[in-house]
Amino acid sequence: MTTTATTGTTSELDRARADFRQQLLDADLLVETGVPGLYGRSGTFENIVEGVDRVVVAAGPGSDATKLRFPPVFPRTSFERTDYIASFPHLTGAVNTFAGSNAEHAELLAARSRGEAWDSWLEPADTVLVSAACHPAYSRYAGALREGGELLDVYGYCFRHEPAVDPARMQAFRMHEFVRIGTEADAAQHRDSWVERGLEVLGSLGLDATAVPANDPFFGRAGRMLAVNQRTENLKTELTVRLYGDLDEGTAVVSCNCHREHFGETFGITTVDGQVAHSACVGFGMERIALALLRTHGLDVDLWPGQVRDRLFP
Amino acid sequence: MTTTATTGTTSELDRARADFRQQLLDADLLVETGVPGLYGRSGTFENIVEGVDRVVVAAGPGSDATKLRFPPVFPRTSFERTDYIASFPHLTGAVNTFAGSNAEHAELLAARSRGEAWDSWLEPADTVLVSAACHPAYSRYAGALREGGELLDVYGYCFRHEPAVDPARMQAFRMHEFVRIGTEADAAQHRDSWVERGLEVLGSLGLDATAVPANDPFFGRAGRMLAVNQRTENLKTELTVRLYGDLDEGTAVVSCNCHREHFGETFGITTVDGQVAHSACVGFGMERIALALLRTHGLDVDLWPGQVRDRLFP
Repeated sequence: MTTTATTGTTSELDRARADFRQQLLDADLLVETGVPGLYGRSGTFENIVEGVDRVVVAAGPGSDATKLRFPPVFPRTSFERTDYIASFPHLTGAVNTFAGSNAEHAELLAARSRGEAWDSWLEPADTVLVSAACHPAYSRYAGALREGGELLDVYGYCFRHEPAVDPARMQAFRMHEFVRIGTEADAAQHRDSWVERGLEVLGSLGLDATAVPANDPFFGRAGRMLAVNQRTENLKTELTVRLYGDLDEGTAVVSCNCHREHFGETFGITTVDGQVAHSACVGFGMERIALALLRTHGLDVDLWPGQVRDRLFP
Repeated sequence: MTTTATTGTTSELDRARADFRQQLLDADLLVETGVPGLYGRSGTFENIVEGVDRVVVAAGPGSDATKLRFPPVFPRTSFERTDYIASFPHLTGAVNTFAGSNAEHAELLAARSRGEAWDSWLEPADTVLVSAACHPAYSRYAGALREGGELLDVYGYCFRHEPAVDPARMQAFRMHEFVRIGTEADAAQHRDSWVERGLEVLGSLGLDATAVPANDPFFGRAGRMLAVNQRTENLKTELTVRLYGDLDEGTAVVSCNCHREHFGETFGITTVDGQVAHSACVGFGMERIALALLRTHGLDVDLWPGQVRDRLFP
């Protein structure tokens, strides 16, 4: 995600982010939880997200797509196949639970009452938090795709462990995705067309967005090469909006991604003629679009431009 | 939750649950994930849930309530205050993440490539999965309540680690709650009034529901006493619908709960005159109501009674 400082000094940018965060809390749009990057949403904020979602759905493929909704956790077996723990271990949220005896529970509680950590009495559950809305969808299509492939509409909560002051970098947020699984050409066309259409959606909401080549925040030294490859092969385009003026390069609010054979290979998905399937997705970051609207049109939704209000709240 | 076998033999009940589960998968209402009790939702199922939510909201307090929405994870500090790890350790979902170095990540990946577990390289994050929609709300009201107390409208995903064949026992599901925080009388009145109103909501959808005294599934030997106390003090009333005929006592689809001073005490909430606040909530189990509708009116939504369709899909 393109939120690295370039022009302004870090402290100026940090201050701008902290200021925006405080404004959102003071205006009762977000609700403080005490955990950096984790917020409750007020009714007003939620209504903006619901409005944005109506606009996104109206721009989307409608009944041409298969609508699927997944809970915020998905199977560990599917998580393993995404290779997320290799590329983004620092963002991962694995679920642990207690499966011990009465005696072990008594030990846990004794440790807790001494003010000690009790996590060592837990063990890994068979689920992991979803980090991209499309991840739970692929396992369903293992095997040969039908003629023409698949077009999916998925929407759900994502978790990424990246505590931050910037309100646009949340640990838990919603992503509405349209996903294409099919031939190499199907996938490439899906990604390319959504760069254009995504810019139109954002423009129709009065947002000044720019399409920029981007890379995922791969972890560590080995990750640097993966990031360079992703850029060289032009696999990720982000639509960014400047939330903090010239202080940074802008915040990605929509992401258009070619996965090439990544999910086809690891989930065993093939096209009708036996080739490894390609996939691509466009992901609308719902909270980030809401924040871009608040930053662009002001914190008082009643004072937003009539055209924008009409689009969001028909 | 009242789903214990009473009349039928366990094997009959198990078979009925497995059959219903298979029907839901075959009819493309739920999507198999491979993890017991974890499902994707089809567009049709999701439309039912959205319809039920409209009905619940219409029966609710409307703008008299403060609308709050929380992500599926909430702060570990708040989780600690709920005492959930003492009462329901087996249902808990604690979040772990990787916060190590490049070298440690290399060790994790080496273990993974040998087919070994890699969870020991993770550490507890500052979040835990939400197990009841109202849990993230209380911390906001620490201190003295305003005159009249609070009435909240919260809706979100809950996680409970209880793998099961019964499709009504999901590991991840949505709960729409109306929560009252105030005096003892405020809380008691809220709970009592929602027993009545909840039955009306379910009746208006053609569901044959019964109000029954109930208890939470407290863990272990010590939990048995807590469960007995909860029943003796009449703190929990569930509205149940029979999904499996006479084979069990019915499935709780709505739960009306008096918490007494539990959350007031642990979150430091007081009434305007300095007493420890009481709280109560009604929780609508959205997936369970959807399943009760499918069981009662059939798997083909187009063939549901006109009156029910009109209520759900106006």
